[in-house]
Amino acid sequence: MEENFAAFRGIKDDVKGRLMCYKQDWTGGIRAGLRILAPTTYIFFASAIPVISFGEQLERNTGGQLTAVQTLASTSLCGIIHSIIGGQPLLILGVAEPTVLMYTFMYDFAKDKPDLGPSLFLAWTGWICVWTATLLFLLAILGACSIINRFTRVAGELFGLLIAMLFMQQSIKGLVDEFHVPKSENPNLTKFQPPWRFANGVFALVLSFGLLFTALKSRKARSWRYGSGLLRGFVADYGVPLMVLIWTAVSYFPGGSVPRGIPRRLFSPNPWSPGAYKNWTVIKDMVNVPVLYIAGALIPATMIAVLYFFDHSVASQLAQQKEFNLRKPSSYHYDLLLLGFMVILCGLLGLPPSNGVIPQSPMHTKSLATLKHQLLRSRLLAAARRCMGQNGSLDQVYGSMQAAYQQMQTPLIYQETPARGLKELKGSTIQLATSTDNTGAAINGTVFDVEKDIDDLLPVEVKEQRISNLLQSTMVGGCVAAMPFLKKIPTSVLWGYFSYMAIESLPGNQLWERILWLFTAPSRRYKVLEEYHATFLETVPFKIIALFTTFQTIYLFTCFGLTWIPIAGVLFPLMIMLLIPVRQFLLPKFFKGEYLQDLDAAEYDEAPALPLNLSRDAEMGSRGAFADDKEILDGVVTRSRGEIRRICSLKVESHGATPDRDYSGHQSPHPSDKL
Amino acid sequence: MEENFAAFRGIKDDVKGRLMCYKQDWTGGIRAGLRILAPTTYIFFASAIPVISFGEQLERNTGGQLTAVQTLASTSLCGIIHSIIGGQPLLILGVAEPTVLMYTFMYDFAKDKPDLGPSLFLAWTGWICVWTATLLFLLAILGACSIINRFTRVAGELFGLLIAMLFMQQSIKGLVDEFHVPKSENPNLTKFQPPWRFANGVFALVLSFGLLFTALKSRKARSWRYGSGLLRGFVADYGVPLMVLIWTAVSYFPGGSVPRGIPRRLFSPNPWSPGAYKNWTVIKDMVNVPVLYIAGALIPATMIAVLYFFDHSVASQLAQQKEFNLRKPSSYHYDLLLLGFMVILCGLLGLPPSNGVIPQSPMHTKSLATLKHQLLRSRLLAAARRCMGQNGSLDQVYGSMQAAYQQMQTPLIYQETPARGLKELKGSTIQLATSTDNTGAAINGTVFDVEKDIDDLLPVEVKEQRISNLLQSTMVGGCVAAMPFLKKIPTSVLWGYFSYMAIESLPGNQLWERILWLFTAPSRRYKVLEEYHATFLETVPFKIIALFTTFQTIYLFTCFGLTWIPIAGVLFPLMIMLLIPVRQFLLPKFFKGEYLQDLDAAEYDEAPALPLNLSRDAEMGSRGAFADDKEILDGVVTRSRGEIRRICSLKVESHGATPDRDYSGHQSPHPSDKL
Repeated sequence: MEENFAAFRGIKDDVKGRLMCYKQDWTGGIRAGLRILAPTTYIFFASAIPVISFGEQLERNTGGQLTAVQTLASTSLCGIIHSIIGGQPLLILGVAEPTVLMYTFMYDFAKDKPDLGPSLFLAWTGWICVWTATLLFLLAILGACSIINRFTRVAGELFGLLIAMLFMQQSIKGLVDEFHVPKSENPNLTKFQPPWRFANGVFALVLSFGLLFTALKSRKARSWRYGSGLLRGFVADYGVPLMVLIWTAVSYFPGGSVPRGIPRRLFSPNPWSPGAYKNWTVIKDMVNVPVLYIAGALIPATMIAVLYFFDHSVASQLAQQKEFNLRKPSSYHYDLLLLGFMVILCGLLGLPPSNGVIPQSPMHTKSLATLKHQLLRSRLLAAARRCMGQNGSLDQVYGSMQAAYQQMQTPLIYQETPARGLKELKGSTIQLATSTDNTGAAINGTVFDVEKDIDDLLPVEVKEQRISNLLQSTMVGGCVAAMPFLKKIPTSVLWGYFSYMAIESLPGNQLWERILWLFTAPSRRYKVLEEYHATFLETVPFKIIALFTTFQTIYLFTCFGLTWIPIAGVLFPLMIMLLIPVRQFLLPKFFKGEYLQDLDAAEYDEAPALPLNLSRDAEMGSRGAFADDKEILDGVVTRSRGEIRRICSLKVESHGATPDRDYSGHQSPHPSDKL
Repeated sequence: MEENFAAFRGIKDDVKGRLMCYKQDWTGGIRAGLRILAPTTYIFFASAIPVISFGEQLERNTGGQLTAVQTLASTSLCGIIHSIIGGQPLLILGVAEPTVLMYTFMYDFAKDKPDLGPSLFLAWTGWICVWTATLLFLLAILGACSIINRFTRVAGELFGLLIAMLFMQQSIKGLVDEFHVPKSENPNLTKFQPPWRFANGVFALVLSFGLLFTALKSRKARSWRYGSGLLRGFVADYGVPLMVLIWTAVSYFPGGSVPRGIPRRLFSPNPWSPGAYKNWTVIKDMVNVPVLYIAGALIPATMIAVLYFFDHSVASQLAQQKEFNLRKPSSYHYDLLLLGFMVILCGLLGLPPSNGVIPQSPMHTKSLATLKHQLLRSRLLAAARRCMGQNGSLDQVYGSMQAAYQQMQTPLIYQETPARGLKELKGSTIQLATSTDNTGAAINGTVFDVEKDIDDLLPVEVKEQRISNLLQSTMVGGCVAAMPFLKKIPTSVLWGYFSYMAIESLPGNQLWERILWLFTAPSRRYKVLEEYHATFLETVPFKIIALFTTFQTIYLFTCFGLTWIPIAGVLFPLMIMLLIPVRQFLLPKFFKGEYLQDLDAAEYDEAPALPLNLSRDAEMGSRGAFADDKEILDGVVTRSRGEIRRICSLKVESHGATPDRDYSGHQSPHPSDKL
């Protein structure tokens, strides 16, 4: 995306690009069939659970003006709108923590004002939303999103890690609170007596660690040794929701031996309770807000607009990272414009607005990559088996797979991405077969073990469509009706889920991996280097990596510290924005250009080389990503970040003298790969 | 060991054999230096913790006649005697669960008899011990232990798994009990009120799972990526005791917010409490036992004698399995004779007798193998480094390592075990270096990465000495004095430790691994075959393995069921003994000889082939065991079981055409290795 601040230009381009693939967004999703339910459920839980928890938080902080019903309604409404007429359907919308913080500050401000007070609070927020939307419109029209290109990996990953820290903080805080009496509760109730409080706290530990541990394990089910492939696939796809169910069931084990309220469970009014409706008619109160407050609403509106501009764009960017090899275009400007409309809508309905969320958006893309992988896999497997059944030669088998692969390609290809991944391996496998004198026996599974080898063939691709997003938003809406069931989930399961989300977002984050690298014992570094790893581990001296990472970590903790400061905390995105000039002007003063480019390739640094290598690099990276672990895309997609260069150089060398070593590449890496 | 039932012949041979290496048993141990403390501490905990728990159990069941003080004293006393004048110093002695069961039955019988009663109970058990010892003498003198050869892998592993099940059962039972009021306690105490009972139970879950999880993780510390080698080594060596300490500390976190007794802790009188001494003078009461009871004591004595004969020999056998490549001779007959003396001693002192215990004895050997590995490693590393410092060639480096290795060999070698392991790899590495044209650069760490490759060179060897056993027995004795500290350990930590012991004893047990194999998804079997695995996976059809394993599992559960039947339960070893005729006469009727030999090689089956292959096979197996995981001997020793054949065949083939494939052998296994 070029930087271009001409009015409406960005929006026009976005709309044009997305319209071209709009039909395919739907047909492609429908063709995926029932399998689409796996990523849908996965994202639905990742989306709904925090939103419910934020709703609880809002309820406490706004004297019950806003509850989980409103946060769920906003998330669902905006999600449905965005999935149907939004630009980038990979982007997940939801009410996020910063919104909750803003609303808390706003309520604290409004509640004691005699001419505003709690009764006009929602009407006032309606005005704030109007202002916010106006600012967002301006930003969208003027093409402000173009600067997203200047937002490099360093900034994105710092932000990702910050969000993970916030989730983890919430999880720990929640767990600690399980040992105490909640503020607004009557401490004389049986369940808040010391023995039961202690019991509740310890039980919460069991439930949350249980959920965390089993959820993490279940995501790896595809590589389990036991159970049928179907069962393993099911557990990997639906393990996390399943674990929420199971641990909720476990929380009922003690039964009558504990008083009601042990363990504590989600709290929210039912949507049909009296008073739950009043927010919907907030629009008629808006005229009663004093003019002074309408004008003053511009101040919080500016803060929210900056926040949303940033959050929405970064969430979208993280959902479209290079290593996912997306085929369809981005849509930053148009999505920001649409966000403006949705903010107004939410404001007028008395709902807290939703915006693009992290880590759910990249989680969404990741789960769709797994889906696409499975679809490709079963199609290619069927083709290969059919061909082998007819006693085809190895060449023919690959030919049939190649054909099946081409059939599945999206007709709209924006980057030139030929299916070279498939061809490449075909060559090297045949070479291997020849060199070990096994060509004759190649077909009967000795050299080409279809089930096993097919995973190596498949590139990382993402099932880009609108169905999963639409479905999950609808399901979030369904949660409002299912409130009586949701209320059975213990809060401690929720805290476990929060830390699960934090931990799930770590692998693939290079900042995180560099921090780990600093702590890796020198004698163990070869282990990291034997696996797929980022280029800079080989090209940048350890001291430089350490310095760079330390700087970034200090910056991260500064941002984290900022979130603790009332009001100012909401502006922590400004700190992240500040990274743009820091990266562009300050860092090059301290780090050599070549190192900086390896640690954090910015498009403005490498502009001339990019157009030539883009498609090849992307394809190489994706091909190589599978040689490491045949099992699971989950790990692979995230691990593959930043490997582009390395894979590429390895390839070039290995094509020459020793083709068969390529095959066992990850076990005995090329000498030059060692430090 | 030949079968020979000539009187005294076995004892004489044993004494002769062990006397030859007696001095080396001590000097070798002393030369190991402070490192001997790692296996010592490890075994001390494995020995002391169950003994304390059994002591608690005895105290409840014998009305306080016997307590943890007595079980610890017996374990320590017998352990010290055995480590000094016993035959096989790898054997660990302790008061075991069957002894506790027997004493419980005996107390139940005696307590209501008017002319015996609780006051003469210990005196009566003194007589039982005298009878037991007499029977043991007879068995030892007549060479009954010769039949240990007929006790094959099938029986040993079934017994091992049974013990693991009993430990696991105890662990689960203990945990469940944490939720209930203990029998002999006052249910009106605060800590037994429903809220606190529930809190105690849940807290126990946290502590025991915490211990189990961290203990299992800490044993693998050597392969961690983080932390210095020293730290990782320390955690791996002392992790389990450390975790007991840490979780005991955690149990104090709630502090004043919970009543005393939450969580429940070990209970035992201090050895200096009044009444704790009375057992020591039991000998003077023995004359008061009515003659009828003295004669009748022969009945329980026979049962105990059978039990001990069996337990002691099997524990000794499992501590001396072939894959440990022991150099020093066994001593079944003499050890049984000595056991007889120790039983009398315990009986006269009013202590429950100790015998050889599982799984502690094999755990002991395993930890000493790790020790030996470390000693060899640091010596060879020093030698190699010295030589490389002088710019020696690859040949010279290996020469220096070879010399260092030879220096460390025990002068008493009973099997012909030349250090061929070292030579072998030297050859193949040089070949590899040549084939990849890297010989010139070989020394500077490219091909021969000392730190990394040295682990591949080292065979499995065990530091056979008496120091660790003596030290751990002494430390168990010290526990009696340290009772006030031991009482701080929560019982729940103990239950966690029990399941840790059960789980630790599983890997390497072929019965267990075959059960897992049956549950391995067919599409995942290649994964097992890519790793080191037992021969039979390739040579025996799946159906036969399934049938054999099912039979064994049913037999296992029958034995397990038997332990639930009062009195009869004590004789479950008879069921295991019954396996000898079953294996020898019944199984060959249902399974082909060749299959049976692969599944369960009995010496009487393969007698003619054995002498020729023994040394080579053993050495091969041990050499190959390291190619899999360079990290930890812990896993390797147990994994290496039963691989002898496979390694051997792989080697022979790979020496021919494709030397470099050998290097990447485990990734692309030889075609003939696949099912």
